[in-house]
Amino acid sequence: MARWAPDARERLRTAALELFAERGFEATTVPDIVERAGLTRRTFFRHFSDKREVFFGDDEIPALAARAVAAAPADATPFAIAWAGFHALAAERFEPRRAQMQAARRLIESEPALRERDLQKQADLRDALRDGYLLRGVDAFTARVTAGVAVELLQIALERWLADETGTPLVQHLAAGRAGMSDALAHP
Amino acid sequence: MARWAPDARERLRTAALELFAERGFEATTVPDIVERAGLTRRTFFRHFSDKREVFFGDDEIPALAARAVAAAPADATPFAIAWAGFHALAAERFEPRRAQMQAARRLIESEPALRERDLQKQADLRDALRDGYLLRGVDAFTARVTAGVAVELLQIALERWLADETGTPLVQHLAAGRAGMSDALAHP
Repeated sequence: MARWAPDARERLRTAALELFAERGFEATTVPDIVERAGLTRRTFFRHFSDKREVFFGDDEIPALAARAVAAAPADATPFAIAWAGFHALAAERFEPRRAQMQAARRLIESEPALRERDLQKQADLRDALRDGYLLRGVDAFTARVTAGVAVELLQIALERWLADETGTPLVQHLAAGRAGMSDALAHP
Repeated sequence: MARWAPDARERLRTAALELFAERGFEATTVPDIVERAGLTRRTFFRHFSDKREVFFGDDEIPALAARAVAAAPADATPFAIAWAGFHALAAERFEPRRAQMQAARRLIESEPALRERDLQKQADLRDALRDGYLLRGVDAFTARVTAGVAVELLQIALERWLADETGTPLVQHLAAGRAGMSDALAHP
């Protein structure tokens, strides 16, 4: 029965996130997670390569970014494509999940293993954007620079938005971050 | 004798780098490294927490950055401090070591474990710069944004310089990256 549970992945993920919140990431083991979920270790490893992977879940953002870049109008500039994509992500994914993202951020900051994986996820998004630009015929330099600027901007805006208790929307943090980055680079 | 070898750390590092180059990073084990160095496993773990740490060695760059930020003239802007620091690093550390850095880059790109650690090292530099700015009284937003922009710029310039076979100096890649980042952000 458990082997074929169609929602095994989701049950494992829910159990893991509950346990991480209760006990911390390090103190939670794979046996703890499978026990809470009522599933087997074998099922766990069919769905996830390790404990870190459960935490991050399906990271669809690089794939979404690649599709958005491919689907953008032919005359859109590389940065404008990322900018529009971040606004769509802000409205559809990030704003509705602020509380969960804050809890996840606290856990990430407390665990070096999660921090490393989080940095890798940012690098994956940067690579997905860059590769999407290259497929549109953008030159390699512009593709790399634009992807780097865009992902750093998103990261800055997300950090500030998650730390900000005044309710300022993410899009305002994106605008402020963009202006701040421009100002920094313009300094003599 | 081996236990007290004053140059144990350097011998372990040399042996490890030789073996990584000969066999690849994954195929090299800690026992291989200690055998080549003529030392013990115990000595290895007194100096390094793992195989990845041997590869990266002492990363002094975040500490150098922290000192450079603290020592900068009172009227220097945050970005100008990073910019001057990158020019000093280019001349003193990076240009004389281009061939070794290229070999290291190839290894990093071939190994996910090294890629993650490399990303962590970039994050450490970003945090060191940001914390240095905060100690100078720079506001939290400017400190974070400037550190993020500066480290992404350094990374872009290093990647392009290491891939560039025309002999263009790193400082030119820094200037081009800076202009490219400004241009990207200025797009409508």
